[in-house]
Amino acid sequence: MEQFSTYIPTQIQFGPGSLESLGREKLPGKKALIVVSAGGSMKRHGYLDRTAALLKKQGIDSVIFDKILPNPILSHVMEGAALARQEGCDFVLGLGGGSSIDSAKSIAVMVNNPGDYWDYINGGSGKGKPVTEAVLPIVAITTTAGTGTEADPWTVITNQDKNEKIGFGTPDTFPTLSIVDPELMLSVPPKLTAYQGFDAFFHAAEGYIANIATPISDLYALESVRLVSRYLPRVVADGNDIEARSKVALANTLSGMVESTSSCTSEHSMEHALSAFKPELPHGAGLIMLSKAYFTHFASVVPQRLATLAEAMGEETSAVPEADRAMLMVTALEKLQRACGVDELKMSDYGLEKAQIPAYAQNARNTMGGLFEMDRAPLNTQDVIAIYEKAYR
Amino acid sequence: MEQFSTYIPTQIQFGPGSLESLGREKLPGKKALIVVSAGGSMKRHGYLDRTAALLKKQGIDSVIFDKILPNPILSHVMEGAALARQEGCDFVLGLGGGSSIDSAKSIAVMVNNPGDYWDYINGGSGKGKPVTEAVLPIVAITTTAGTGTEADPWTVITNQDKNEKIGFGTPDTFPTLSIVDPELMLSVPPKLTAYQGFDAFFHAAEGYIANIATPISDLYALESVRLVSRYLPRVVADGNDIEARSKVALANTLSGMVESTSSCTSEHSMEHALSAFKPELPHGAGLIMLSKAYFTHFASVVPQRLATLAEAMGEETSAVPEADRAMLMVTALEKLQRACGVDELKMSDYGLEKAQIPAYAQNARNTMGGLFEMDRAPLNTQDVIAIYEKAYR
Repeated sequence: MEQFSTYIPTQIQFGPGSLESLGREKLPGKKALIVVSAGGSMKRHGYLDRTAALLKKQGIDSVIFDKILPNPILSHVMEGAALARQEGCDFVLGLGGGSSIDSAKSIAVMVNNPGDYWDYINGGSGKGKPVTEAVLPIVAITTTAGTGTEADPWTVITNQDKNEKIGFGTPDTFPTLSIVDPELMLSVPPKLTAYQGFDAFFHAAEGYIANIATPISDLYALESVRLVSRYLPRVVADGNDIEARSKVALANTLSGMVESTSSCTSEHSMEHALSAFKPELPHGAGLIMLSKAYFTHFASVVPQRLATLAEAMGEETSAVPEADRAMLMVTALEKLQRACGVDELKMSDYGLEKAQIPAYAQNARNTMGGLFEMDRAPLNTQDVIAIYEKAYR
Repeated sequence: MEQFSTYIPTQIQFGPGSLESLGREKLPGKKALIVVSAGGSMKRHGYLDRTAALLKKQGIDSVIFDKILPNPILSHVMEGAALARQEGCDFVLGLGGGSSIDSAKSIAVMVNNPGDYWDYINGGSGKGKPVTEAVLPIVAITTTAGTGTEADPWTVITNQDKNEKIGFGTPDTFPTLSIVDPELMLSVPPKLTAYQGFDAFFHAAEGYIANIATPISDLYALESVRLVSRYLPRVVADGNDIEARSKVALANTLSGMVESTSSCTSEHSMEHALSAFKPELPHGAGLIMLSKAYFTHFASVVPQRLATLAEAMGEETSAVPEADRAMLMVTALEKLQRACGVDELKMSDYGLEKAQIPAYAQNARNTMGGLFEMDRAPLNTQDVIAIYEKAYR
């Protein structure tokens, strides 16, 4: 057995109705900056008022910062941090999907640290400076099941000036408290539910085949894969199925725990390249488009791991010869995509061009090259191009 | 799905050779109180010198407190805390088995908090005062695989004056860093290895049938049960089998994670009563003696959960009618006890008397009554007596 480390210091309150725990759990400060998206859905659904009222119940004031975009941007991180400073906030609460919670994390870094957020970013034009001043405590309240950010330290922010979208995290950007209340997810429409659910699935499945997977991350990953496979079709079919919503929400939290203890692999780099060229392509949809070709490639690299994934997805691997078991994972993936109505997604529908594939391959390596190092067998440029070509429709 | 909470803020460094990580991981202070047992084994095996040297490598001084007994006592907690205060230690490092690490936790509480440790204890003659002052950070280095204390906040200390042995813990008594290096466990003799391994097993199995089990604690519990079932016989047969040692060490850490996220059940209360009457009875041995009768009782209470445990223990439950599946767990338990050479343990060999069973039942309820509330169906006194009688040999 090799050495490994595990560390997830976040207190997670999970389950239908758990938003109420915000009114009784110990909170890390006296005044919160509440970070929400610009879209207004947190107000419309009443989640913002409920959150502020629950804080108030504990005597905690709050200030609202409601400018976050679906792909959160650097200038809003700096603006939010300035507001928190000016208002004397001593913790940051992200309420919403991954964009709001990631922004909350990055804002929490910048309230006390000098200079620009990009000074601390590793990669691209970031300066890679160490974070020296205290990061404000972070509270996360999720209203989607896709990024797992409530259970990991990662935040992805886009620097529009440089055209860079880069992840960041330190041990201090784990939320201190995360609340995962599936009742807040009932309003997510079917398509988005499917895309986000598949994003969670691939965080787990990639984390399972990554070369830094551990016995602990494997537990989280296989359970996440099992839950998405079993319950995502149900919640896509009926968004009000609270049991299925809860199971998919749990799968997503587990996938965040995978991201804290293992890593995504090159599939994520390859998808980010597609979204970089076509920002209107949802991340989960891009992953779905690539996934069959990607996992088919890895069926020969990590056959045992893919066979175990297939089992978790409900396939009876013992029913086929050992040599065929890995590919049952791809069969299961096809079935799951059909069951969720996302099996007909085409790159060409989003304007992605076959002739551009070498450029996508280059972009994947340039912007998120690090994830290629997490593959159990390195992909060369020809491999990457072959996977894109096989996936292209 | 019900609401649940999960929180394990400990950074765990796991694997053969991981003691070395003490020389490079960020440590929570500049001067450590190192807490070890009075037996001298930490010195004899060279673990104490290695630990002090690794701290020194990071410029960290240390003071040694080497008085801890197998059942750690209150007066040593107070003495250790006074030494830490006097020497200006700013964190406490427990090196050894559960007794040393539990003592380190309790000492860490008492360095800054006024009065007596028993003032803060809930239960018995404890005064149940809140811990108001900062608990010193705790580092745990385990040299046995039995209590799981490296991954939970719990510490069990005996007050000899009152004849009370009571558990305690707060969110601040989780170790900040735990190192689990199976190489440090190679010297544990076979009998002790078996007893400790079964202790880990029952932490997991009880945590799995407890009424506060969660989807997350279930993951840890089933994997722990699986690993003990598969690898404990190997490590009992050959203590130098580092792979098997590592798997059992992992099972133990997972069982600690179960104790952080679920709970033991009344089996532990019933065993503590036996040890209370006969302190020379090893805790793991007492659990083994009770276990078949105990789990046979629960086979009708939680048949599905026992069937799943049987599966994790390697039984093919689908081969028998559904009504018989739960009892396969008891069959598997018998096999495992035979494979580890602990199937012939008798209460009578330790001087426990059949006539005293009502007194054991009373003691179990009086001293650790709380765990009876964790059972999915409450045991009445007749049930408890019946289990003791069935287990008695």
